[in-house]
Amino acid sequence: MSKSELVSIPTFEQVQKAYLKIRDKVHRTPVIKSQKVNERAGGELFFKCENFQKVGAFKFRGATHTVGELPEEKAQNGVATHSSGNHAQAVALAAKQRGIPAHIVMPENAPKVKVNAVRDYGANITFCKSTQQARETTLKSVVEETGATFIHPYDNPEIIMGQGSAAIELLEDKPELDIILAPVGGGGLISGTAIAASGFSPKTKVIGTEPEVANDAYLSFKTGKLHPVQSTNTVADGLRTSLSELTFSCIQEHVDDIVTVTEQEIIDAMRFIWERMKIIIEPSCAVPVAAVFNGKVDIQNKRAGIIISGGNMDLDSLPWQ
Amino acid sequence: MSKSELVSIPTFEQVQKAYLKIRDKVHRTPVIKSQKVNERAGGELFFKCENFQKVGAFKFRGATHTVGELPEEKAQNGVATHSSGNHAQAVALAAKQRGIPAHIVMPENAPKVKVNAVRDYGANITFCKSTQQARETTLKSVVEETGATFIHPYDNPEIIMGQGSAAIELLEDKPELDIILAPVGGGGLISGTAIAASGFSPKTKVIGTEPEVANDAYLSFKTGKLHPVQSTNTVADGLRTSLSELTFSCIQEHVDDIVTVTEQEIIDAMRFIWERMKIIIEPSCAVPVAAVFNGKVDIQNKRAGIIISGGNMDLDSLPWQ
Repeated sequence: MSKSELVSIPTFEQVQKAYLKIRDKVHRTPVIKSQKVNERAGGELFFKCENFQKVGAFKFRGATHTVGELPEEKAQNGVATHSSGNHAQAVALAAKQRGIPAHIVMPENAPKVKVNAVRDYGANITFCKSTQQARETTLKSVVEETGATFIHPYDNPEIIMGQGSAAIELLEDKPELDIILAPVGGGGLISGTAIAASGFSPKTKVIGTEPEVANDAYLSFKTGKLHPVQSTNTVADGLRTSLSELTFSCIQEHVDDIVTVTEQEIIDAMRFIWERMKIIIEPSCAVPVAAVFNGKVDIQNKRAGIIISGGNMDLDSLPWQ
Repeated sequence: MSKSELVSIPTFEQVQKAYLKIRDKVHRTPVIKSQKVNERAGGELFFKCENFQKVGAFKFRGATHTVGELPEEKAQNGVATHSSGNHAQAVALAAKQRGIPAHIVMPENAPKVKVNAVRDYGANITFCKSTQQARETTLKSVVEETGATFIHPYDNPEIIMGQGSAAIELLEDKPELDIILAPVGGGGLISGTAIAASGFSPKTKVIGTEPEVANDAYLSFKTGKLHPVQSTNTVADGLRTSLSELTFSCIQEHVDDIVTVTEQEIIDAMRFIWERMKIIIEPSCAVPVAAVFNGKVDIQNKRAGIIISGGNMDLDSLPWQ
C-alpha cells in the first residue's frame, strides 16, 4: 500500500480543479526577478509574489477554495478557525466574499497589523492564550456556540489543493524551473506546491525550507517519523506550527528535500530583499531565500522559483531593530 | 517674450528623443494599483513604480541620458556630482555602464544604504559637511583635480529630459489620466513630467507636491518669484533642495498647481503604502500620496498617476520608530 492510500492525499487533478475554481477570485500574482539578488545567489531566481496576493499572503488561495466548496446549508452557519495571522485574514475575507460569518480565534500576542486586518474584514475575533491548547479549546467552544465549520489552516485536503494553485501559476509563467523552494510551517503550502509540480513539471525538484530552531519537518522528513515542533522561538512567525499526518504524507510522497537555516540567515535575507528589491516580505518567506543565499541548496547555473508566501509585518517590531 | 525663451526649457520633442535614447538602458517600471489604496484615496490611483528602477529611483533616467550625451573626449575624464543619495547612485551606475570614472561628493550624514550603493558601483567618494556650501566647494576641487564633467542633479536640461521619460511610459500605459502628481525637490522630476504631459496628453493636469516645512516651490509658484528653501528639516530627505531658475521656469510654464503636506501626513502615507501594497517607498514619494489621502488634491472619481520616485531607505532609521 502506498503512502497516498494510508491518508488520502490530494491528487494533481484536484489541485488543477481547485485552481480553475478560484482563479477569478484570487490575484494572479507577478513573478519577478532581480539581477542583484541573482548575483548574490549565484543562480537565477524567480519570485512568485504572494505578498501581493489578497490579504497579503498565499493563504487566501486555500481559504477561498475551502470556503467555496462548503455546501450552502453548512455555509450559512459560517466558518471558524484559529490562527496567529495570515490564515485568519484569509478565512475572514473568503467568508466575507461568500457573504457568511467568520469566527476567528487569535492568540493575544498576534501582530497588531494582522488583528486589525481581520477586524477590517468583518470577522468576529476571540482572543486566547498563545498556546496550541488554548487555541484549540477556545475554537471548540466557538464552534459549539455558532455551528460554524472549522477551517483548519493546513490539515485539510481542500486547503492544500488551493495552496497548490500558486505553483501552477508559477510553472505556467516559468515552465523551465529546475527547483521550486517554499517555506514549511504546517506544511500546507509545500504540500500543494509539490503536488502541483509533480503533475505539471515532474523534472522540477521541490525543496522545503525551515528555520533550524523549528525543524520539525526536517526531522520528520529525515527520520520518516512525524516529529512535533519543539520550539516556537523563531522570527519566522508563520512557521511555528507542526506538520499533520496529512501534510507529512504529502511531503514524503512528493518533496525532494528539506533544508534548514539559522535565525540570522533569515533576518539577513529578509533585509537584503527589502533593500534591493524594494518589496516587503515577511520572515517566513525569507527562509527559502536564506537557503539559496547560504548554499543550503545548490542553485549554481540553475533556475529556481521561490514562493514568496506573504508580506504581512508589524512595522513596529522589525527583527533588525 | 515667453518664459521658455528667457531660460531655454526643454521641449516635449527633446523629452521624447531622450526617452528613445535611454529606453533600452533603463527598466520600464510597472504601473500598479491597489483597491485598498483607492478606497482610502476616493479615486483611482496608478503608481508608476520608479522604486523598482535601477538604483531604486527615477534619477537613473536623467543620469543615463546626461552621461550618454557627453562627447567621447569629455567623457573620458569622467563625471562628478554632489548628492545626498539617489542622484549619486544614478551617476555612479550610469558612468559605470559607459565605462568612465565617477567622482561623488556626499554629505557625511547621507544614509548608509546610499553610501554603500555608490561604493558598490565603483565610484570615488569624497565626504563633506552637510551644507550646500561645503558640497559645492568640495565638488569644485574634485572637478579641478580630475577634469570630470559636473552633472547637476536638476539644473540641467538633459537631466530634465531624462526624468520626463517616466511620465511618457506612464501615459503610454494609462493615456486616460486626469492628473499626474509628483514630488518637488530641486524640480527635475516635476519639470520633466510636466513637459512630457504637455505634449503627450495636454488634458492631463500636473500637480507638484511638497513638504510644508520645505515649501520653496510652493512659495515660488504662488508668488511668481524664486524662493530658496529655508528649512531642510523634513523627513522627505530627497526634497530638501531649492528650485533653480531652469526648473522654476519649467514649473511656471507647465505645472498646474503645487500643494503641501505635513510631516505626519507624509509618514502616515508612507506606512500605509508599505503595509497595504507591500512595496517600499521612500518618504519623498509618500508626499504625493499624502496629498491625495488628505484632500489636498481633488481626485474624486478621477484617475490620477503618481510617480513613485524611489525606494531607498535606511531600514535602521524608519520615521515611525
